[in-house]
Amino acid sequence: MDKEIIVAVDAMGGDNAPEEIIKGAVNAANCFPVTIILVGQENVLKEVLAKHNYDAKKIHIVHASEVITTEESPTTAIRRKKDSSIVVGLNLVKEKKAHAFVSAGSTGALLTGALFIVGRIKGVERPVLGTCLPTKKGFTFLVDSGANVDCKAKYLEQFAKMSSVYIENMFGIQNPKVGIVNIGAEKEKGNSLTKEAYELLENADINFIGNIEPRDIPSGDADIIVCDGFVGNTILKLSEGLSMTLLGIIKKEITQGAYKLAALALKKPFQNIKQRFDADEVGGAPFLGLQSLVVKAHGSSNAKAIQNAIKQCIHFVETDVVGKISQKIE
Amino acid sequence: MDKEIIVAVDAMGGDNAPEEIIKGAVNAANCFPVTIILVGQENVLKEVLAKHNYDAKKIHIVHASEVITTEESPTTAIRRKKDSSIVVGLNLVKEKKAHAFVSAGSTGALLTGALFIVGRIKGVERPVLGTCLPTKKGFTFLVDSGANVDCKAKYLEQFAKMSSVYIENMFGIQNPKVGIVNIGAEKEKGNSLTKEAYELLENADINFIGNIEPRDIPSGDADIIVCDGFVGNTILKLSEGLSMTLLGIIKKEITQGAYKLAALALKKPFQNIKQRFDADEVGGAPFLGLQSLVVKAHGSSNAKAIQNAIKQCIHFVETDVVGKISQKIE
Repeated sequence: MDKEIIVAVDAMGGDNAPEEIIKGAVNAANCFPVTIILVGQENVLKEVLAKHNYDAKKIHIVHASEVITTEESPTTAIRRKKDSSIVVGLNLVKEKKAHAFVSAGSTGALLTGALFIVGRIKGVERPVLGTCLPTKKGFTFLVDSGANVDCKAKYLEQFAKMSSVYIENMFGIQNPKVGIVNIGAEKEKGNSLTKEAYELLENADINFIGNIEPRDIPSGDADIIVCDGFVGNTILKLSEGLSMTLLGIIKKEITQGAYKLAALALKKPFQNIKQRFDADEVGGAPFLGLQSLVVKAHGSSNAKAIQNAIKQCIHFVETDVVGKISQKIE
Repeated sequence: MDKEIIVAVDAMGGDNAPEEIIKGAVNAANCFPVTIILVGQENVLKEVLAKHNYDAKKIHIVHASEVITTEESPTTAIRRKKDSSIVVGLNLVKEKKAHAFVSAGSTGALLTGALFIVGRIKGVERPVLGTCLPTKKGFTFLVDSGANVDCKAKYLEQFAKMSSVYIENMFGIQNPKVGIVNIGAEKEKGNSLTKEAYELLENADINFIGNIEPRDIPSGDADIIVCDGFVGNTILKLSEGLSMTLLGIIKKEITQGAYKLAALALKKPFQNIKQRFDADEVGGAPFLGLQSLVVKAHGSSNAKAIQNAIKQCIHFVETDVVGKISQKIE
């Protein structure tokens, strides 16, 4: 593969597939030094691709006849649908035909498949999903945001180490601040998992800043916050749901009768706010601890999100995050 | 005690003690058929009381020389500060000199003290804290919102049963809908705790409606949502933090230069929204499963919140929630 970075993209996964996925991939190929392999049903992909202008040397299609839906059991789907876009894409990475794989499809199937097909870095107990959560100051990297629902303290220690490498290399934040999600500020607070993990994090080779109370997560004082995947996914999804609900209520409340004109005048600042809390800006959630990069893009990803996810893959490969995580874990 | 309902109130607990606590207690005594026992430093309480008009037969003071702060270890504080307002107040309930106790002080100390001093209803594994979480439709009763950070599935089953009794009697909602907080809509999703709890809830004598994904909590489709106290407290505190952060960002964004006038016009609808997400409206969080009612009022409770918490105590005693929980658990 030499220096040319190749990113495989699941053209069939997500709410807006294949149109938006392909559009994002074409944009990435046109903007960045990258070759794209679109994985999916060839005839469908060719039809959509025909609508775009692109350098044919930079975009290739690898056929996959099947699609895994979000309703299917991940383990069963990965085992049975050998010719699905997710399995075919992951195999491209395994066989070193691509450096990274991006999918907006079933999270469960992608994580299960990645674990079995791409495989872990030696010494990594559990690969982990990290997601950039919007905050007042920008974002906080939330790990585990949903891969491991039952965790041991030592997993959380590794999550913190892997994330520190990721954030330092991807965003240039030196010595990123790591907090642990806990219901109380003091060291002795929390459940059995957080108490044990606190001890490990305190003694780990990271910049540990202690407990982060859920109330303070939106302030964004930590660069990285670690927790088990159940709590992390709860934080992620509740944040999305609550932001949308609140903005919806505000919209409804202020666009009634008397306030219509005032609300109209405020359209621009509200768009700014919505953009700040927009997942598409960041790209996707990396699955850290694997032999190669696998990125889970949001199910509702549009072209911009896919383009950003591909950009993220390029930077990840260029800065050798896998090699550095491997060193950190050893 | 007969029919006259007596509520003991911790006059020293919370950010706004003693002024707002006493004001709320006086308002309750003036509005409702209730006798109040204010617990705290007599000279301080007398001074504040002197500023109010009230029926002296309806408000009494019981002296407590000490105050437990939120910084103290709950167990140590309860053991050592025998003359604190929390311990004295809980003893009033234990000795049947009051039907209920309301405190805006240290949650940990109140829960620990309540468990040891007031004691559990026979058959109750773990008393549980329930909090009304504002939603689009009104509120959802979140249990456990922070009392038990490490839970077994059978605790969650009891939380659901006790909450069903509470919500049915306190809010007149027949057959309240109970959901379990889970990261996925399907039965087989979740961690080991939620999977096991799902089975129990499905077969329990409650109106179980299945998994509630964190994203859907703000929609308010369930009357009650059960989870362990770590997850529940995370949901509660993150919701508070995120709502305040979002409203703060919006305020900042729209009160700049060009938008000032429009923002001014929208003051009223924004106040409406803030009020909808205002914890003071609901009162306090009941600690369910004890021999008598203990209510944790929010640390930042004002007079209105305390008045509402006292009102809640009256209704709780009148409808015999303790007796009905006892029957349900047996």
